[in-house]
Amino acid sequence: MKFKASIKVMLKPVVLDPQGTTLQRALNQLGHENVKFVRVGKLVELVLESPNPQSALEEVNTWADQLLANPVMETYSVKLEPQS
Amino acid sequence: MKFKASIKVMLKPVVLDPQGTTLQRALNQLGHENVKFVRVGKLVELVLESPNPQSALEEVNTWADQLLANPVMETYSVKLEPQS
Repeated sequence: MKFKASIKVMLKPVVLDPQGTTLQRALNQLGHENVKFVRVGKLVELVLESPNPQSALEEVNTWADQLLANPVMETYSVKLEPQS
Repeated sequence: MKFKASIKVMLKPVVLDPQGTTLQRALNQLGHENVKFVRVGKLVELVLESPNPQSALEEVNTWADQLLANPVMETYSVKLEPQS
């Protein structure tokens, strides 16, 4: 079976996010003072083949943990859906 | 009211994604040959104040269009939810 996985990788809340801060300042300076908080993260979308959803989710979690996210500074969440 | 908006920015399918290709090759070389396709995108999460969901969505779409995404090469999608 084919699955589509979305891995959302964000900096941990305690880690400073200069890109987000810059973006927020830019929006505020452009007059959008209703923007209160901005964080910028990474999104990895991949298609994989796996015999069942459980094993697919397990594999993607392993990759996210070991390769895609830096567990010291980042958190990740995985979303899996069947791909037609 | 406060809203949390997630803006997902991905390269258009016709645009080459070297980061995604590199990631796919790395996963394949590590023995994960069931990975068929990888794209890497950007995720902007922001909190904004707005009188109602309609105006919030409209504002966020304008920012995404004019500031966060490059409409020549990228597509974006916006998800909005109330923030408690």
